[in-house]
Amino acid sequence: MSILIKNSKIVTQNKNREVVEGDLYIEGQEIIEIGRISTEADFVIRDKIVMPGLINMHTHLPMVLLRGYGDDLPLEEWLTNRIWPAEAKLKKSHISAGTKLALLEMSATGTTTCNDMYFFEDVIANEAKKFGMRCYAGFSLLDFDTPEMKKEELLPECEKFIRRWKGDEFITPVIAPHATYTCSPETLDKARELQKKYDAFVHIHCSETRKEVYDVLEKYGKRPPEQIKEYGLLNKKTILAHCGWITKQEVKEIALAGACVAHNPVSNMKLATGGYTPLPELFDADACVSLGTDGAASNNKLDMFETMKFAALIHKHHRWNPSIVTAQETLDMATINAAKFLGLNAGSIEEGKKADVITLDARAVNLMPSHNNIISHIVYAASGFNVDNVIINGKVIMNDRKFIGIDVENVYKEVEKAKNELID
Amino acid sequence: MSILIKNSKIVTQNKNREVVEGDLYIEGQEIIEIGRISTEADFVIRDKIVMPGLINMHTHLPMVLLRGYGDDLPLEEWLTNRIWPAEAKLKKSHISAGTKLALLEMSATGTTTCNDMYFFEDVIANEAKKFGMRCYAGFSLLDFDTPEMKKEELLPECEKFIRRWKGDEFITPVIAPHATYTCSPETLDKARELQKKYDAFVHIHCSETRKEVYDVLEKYGKRPPEQIKEYGLLNKKTILAHCGWITKQEVKEIALAGACVAHNPVSNMKLATGGYTPLPELFDADACVSLGTDGAASNNKLDMFETMKFAALIHKHHRWNPSIVTAQETLDMATINAAKFLGLNAGSIEEGKKADVITLDARAVNLMPSHNNIISHIVYAASGFNVDNVIINGKVIMNDRKFIGIDVENVYKEVEKAKNELID
Repeated sequence: MSILIKNSKIVTQNKNREVVEGDLYIEGQEIIEIGRISTEADFVIRDKIVMPGLINMHTHLPMVLLRGYGDDLPLEEWLTNRIWPAEAKLKKSHISAGTKLALLEMSATGTTTCNDMYFFEDVIANEAKKFGMRCYAGFSLLDFDTPEMKKEELLPECEKFIRRWKGDEFITPVIAPHATYTCSPETLDKARELQKKYDAFVHIHCSETRKEVYDVLEKYGKRPPEQIKEYGLLNKKTILAHCGWITKQEVKEIALAGACVAHNPVSNMKLATGGYTPLPELFDADACVSLGTDGAASNNKLDMFETMKFAALIHKHHRWNPSIVTAQETLDMATINAAKFLGLNAGSIEEGKKADVITLDARAVNLMPSHNNIISHIVYAASGFNVDNVIINGKVIMNDRKFIGIDVENVYKEVEKAKNELID
Repeated sequence: MSILIKNSKIVTQNKNREVVEGDLYIEGQEIIEIGRISTEADFVIRDKIVMPGLINMHTHLPMVLLRGYGDDLPLEEWLTNRIWPAEAKLKKSHISAGTKLALLEMSATGTTTCNDMYFFEDVIANEAKKFGMRCYAGFSLLDFDTPEMKKEELLPECEKFIRRWKGDEFITPVIAPHATYTCSPETLDKARELQKKYDAFVHIHCSETRKEVYDVLEKYGKRPPEQIKEYGLLNKKTILAHCGWITKQEVKEIALAGACVAHNPVSNMKLATGGYTPLPELFDADACVSLGTDGAASNNKLDMFETMKFAALIHKHHRWNPSIVTAQETLDMATINAAKFLGLNAGSIEEGKKADVITLDARAVNLMPSHNNIISHIVYAASGFNVDNVIINGKVIMNDRKFIGIDVENVYKEVEKAKNELID
């Protein structure tokens, strides 16, 4: 299969962050050429804004089932009376339905790679592979039973999960100790052993709320990043979700370790965590910073375009400085920063890279007039719903806003059924 | 012309905030019936989420021409090196082109009424009337020459403008003294005289930045709301844009006077004003609070759905309280609060009200699953691009995302020409 995107504005996100006016040629899974191209192709798209697919670095896919179920509630009440009782009923069929919906929503709004963490991760990985979405699938480790299995089964099952998926084209198995307040030192220890054994990524919540920070400090004498470090998990293969309440010293430690922060501004604001992931300090320290939506129960979307805008604006306002967290820095977080960290040969449009490419409707009313500063339009003016074509690994998933070979109405039917079973 | 919307979920925004499952019948300019309706109609729409059109209470329509022109800059540099030089070149043709684009973008994302303030307001009013958008058209008053006329012409021309438009079906002329830092006491005095003479609305910027507050305090010994009050302009026909830096005492004064605050969270955050319009206190005081996008140069969209989400989230996060500024309160700000204040027989879906109605695609991927809490979906999960039908004053402006009888590409051509003339 070959794809030719003609006469377009190509936001490459290459080293020089060039925007190229021209054509893009894809063959098989790969970006072959950028320039003026006269080759014929199986599939031709014209007159677009072309950019790398977005990378959602923190999410819980099946939680789309709980979208809008309990908003505007205090965190404890939301978790205790809404989320946990519903999650306790989770079965494979629910996870499958929810994941399918999440994959549709993410790709419809331009995401081509996600970094997930949930229960029944094998079901999630299977759905992502069937769909053709790149998924870093985080197998959750906790000190209590999950809706899927007994706590003592978690570690051995996690190892089996890693073995089953290691080397897969779309799925990368990830170890996901939930957080330092939900994982004992023993669990963290074992997670590290697994990480070492398989050279796997670790995905962990870190300093999302101030309460968490002080609870962990009280219990272990260390704040969450210190605790993560203590147990050998602060390293160049660790993704720290949130970091809304980290210190300047912790910024340095994270940068030094080469870990990656996944910043989730929409979820943090909606849950009112009050913290501000210190982006300017993380940038200054040359730490890797990426963006995520978090689960749709606390967002309530999986739209990385919206997340980019929130990310840029929250910090400008908080620091009284419109010049920080620029449009370019924001787009970098959602693309190349994450790709580099993950060792993923994507995140930019360059010859030889995997063809994870999205296009935006260049004639969308909110992208007019067509100023030269297309990066600004992408971050501040675009909507996820301006995405009209999605290509992952060289395959067209969505064309002109229609999904190829996916029965969307059937997914909706499964989702409604799942919702009705989870929520009375 | 009659319109029947069948088998839909109707978010009425009536006194009891009922959501009705059923049909909606419109005849001429009016909502005739809500319920189970078997009447035939000229135009039939099915299976939607139906809600009142949104009311954008603070904008500068033609500034869409400057969308993305100078982002991430300090405010002074942005104004001095970008906005003002471009604005100095403004001609009627630019205003016409920009207004047309803004009307397209606003209606495409669900706005059916706007409250504008700019130069060449007569051109803006004409375009809004031709388009069929309800527009409260603010004729700007300043102490210096505008791109349109000499400063001494402003007051007499403003009066002519009011006379010309008073009583129009779509356009309501508004007096718009720009702000207390740009209008002398004499100008404020004259604005009040005009307001009294014509019982007109006044639209004024108020306490947008902390600098403004202290500049005005230093110059006149009063903070902006006090200065506005001193000159008789704090009353039940005054719209105060921003109020990001008002005091608790000023909250009381605004509520007592019956003035309306237009809160613009996206623009405030993008320009990094640092202030938080005190919504909880304004609600407690029973003050009228509405929402606006501000101009697209500082937003960079005119999407009131995005504005609703930012409005709800910014205050939750700032106050560490997920329960404040609820979805319902947010939707109220964008609909019925503004309509009530303006004395507009719209802002809710009730029999006898003007048919300013929008529909959302109920099968949009981001609105699944269809939880009962549709208000949450509208505020937290919807995008302006889920709007698929727009009806203003009983006329279908957009059907299935296509504008009726508008040559969109021709507008784009005019917009590109205008942009090229304004920006070298």
